[in-house]
Amino acid sequence: MEELTSIHNQHVKDWKKLSTKKFRKQTGYYLLDGWHLVNEAVHAGVAIHQLIGTADQLDEHRELFDDAKAVYAVTPEIMKHITDTVTPQGIAAVVDLPDAHRVPTQPLTGAWLFLDRVQDPGNVGTMVRTADAAGFTGVVVGHRSADLFGPKVVRSMQGSQFHLQLFEGDLTKWIADFKENGAPVYGTQLNPQAKNFRDVHPGKTFALIMGNEGQGMSQELLTATSDNLYIPMRGEAESLNVAISAGILMFQLNQ
Amino acid sequence: MEELTSIHNQHVKDWKKLSTKKFRKQTGYYLLDGWHLVNEAVHAGVAIHQLIGTADQLDEHRELFDDAKAVYAVTPEIMKHITDTVTPQGIAAVVDLPDAHRVPTQPLTGAWLFLDRVQDPGNVGTMVRTADAAGFTGVVVGHRSADLFGPKVVRSMQGSQFHLQLFEGDLTKWIADFKENGAPVYGTQLNPQAKNFRDVHPGKTFALIMGNEGQGMSQELLTATSDNLYIPMRGEAESLNVAISAGILMFQLNQ
Repeated sequence: MEELTSIHNQHVKDWKKLSTKKFRKQTGYYLLDGWHLVNEAVHAGVAIHQLIGTADQLDEHRELFDDAKAVYAVTPEIMKHITDTVTPQGIAAVVDLPDAHRVPTQPLTGAWLFLDRVQDPGNVGTMVRTADAAGFTGVVVGHRSADLFGPKVVRSMQGSQFHLQLFEGDLTKWIADFKENGAPVYGTQLNPQAKNFRDVHPGKTFALIMGNEGQGMSQELLTATSDNLYIPMRGEAESLNVAISAGILMFQLNQ
Repeated sequence: MEELTSIHNQHVKDWKKLSTKKFRKQTGYYLLDGWHLVNEAVHAGVAIHQLIGTADQLDEHRELFDDAKAVYAVTPEIMKHITDTVTPQGIAAVVDLPDAHRVPTQPLTGAWLFLDRVQDPGNVGTMVRTADAAGFTGVVVGHRSADLFGPKVVRSMQGSQFHLQLFEGDLTKWIADFKENGAPVYGTQLNPQAKNFRDVHPGKTFALIMGNEGQGMSQELLTATSDNLYIPMRGEAESLNVAISAGILMFQLNQ
């Protein structure tokens, strides 16, 4: 165990830099902040490259040391510096960044969520967490969406990245792959001319696409789907939050 | 039209103080920030006591002046100071705080959402917005929940406060009132022994209760309901965000 007390230490600088996508890609690591996520990683059998904790927290959980390749005792100030959380729990871990561009296992089965330029990290993370709860198999994030392993997305996912398959990629290709396999792909549209979401009853394998918070799905993708769905709104509200819509749709489609 | 350039002006101080519940109660006013909310208020026929804008914004929308009792041209700095938004649109309005403790019209009909100690303002606002979209009649916020007219709740409601009835009150009494009228009241519980939400089909009048983010509903209220509902989760996720759960339940119950 190494003790670190300065935020100018190279390790501390590196942990802080893991909040940037560039440094995550460069190193192949990302940071888990807090007990829930660290425990989820251990439970999932994910390798803990570096376990970082305040003296108090490390003392109380010596059993974790067996799972970690290196352990660092740091000050509460360092913890706050690297996690960017108002009241950090005093524990964090550096783990492998999954290869989101790997070739998925064929044939594609199960329920999948595709995200088309969803930009709010909280929305992306909440949708991954909800997909997990709805029994989805995977989530594919298209270009120009919030990065799956940024600090805010990781916080909102609450460990669901260990339960389902996550990919980044070209949604046009993913849609074509599903359709080639005979699986329906449902777009979503704020348009009463689209299909009422209560009228579709897919089998076990399908994909659902959610679009950008302000603009919705791109025209290009809307024309590539099997069907586009609409949630009929009865009040005077003009729209639903994208993560709320996703929750309603996922629990309806994957019964 | 009065021009204000100092953040030390008494009006500016008062607008800033409207971000506190105490001052809202004391004055009977709250603040709407941005075009969408100001337009919703005008559309709903709500009196605009004070219209506050940057010179640019006021110039472009002189038609609004007829609806406002007083108009103030302010600097972008003042706008930022009073709205606490990173990039304010340059328009705000002071309107009447609804009396959330008024006696509701009897008999109570339609679908209602009750919030039991929901503390995150974004969750409260998003649930009000979703209730509106799901065609609900009203929302009742119990004690120790985020205040309905705080800045973050108002931002998340996106104008839905003008479309449905909002109350604050003792949920025990509200539950008793509904049950006396023969209307079911559904609690929610993270407990697979509770009733599957897909198995209830209420009529037009019912209430749904959502609980605190961490602790769920209070034991006292759970024993006072007609039935408690559960959303079966198929993945390994342990829970859903409360606003997501509310969305799934409201769109299921109020078809």
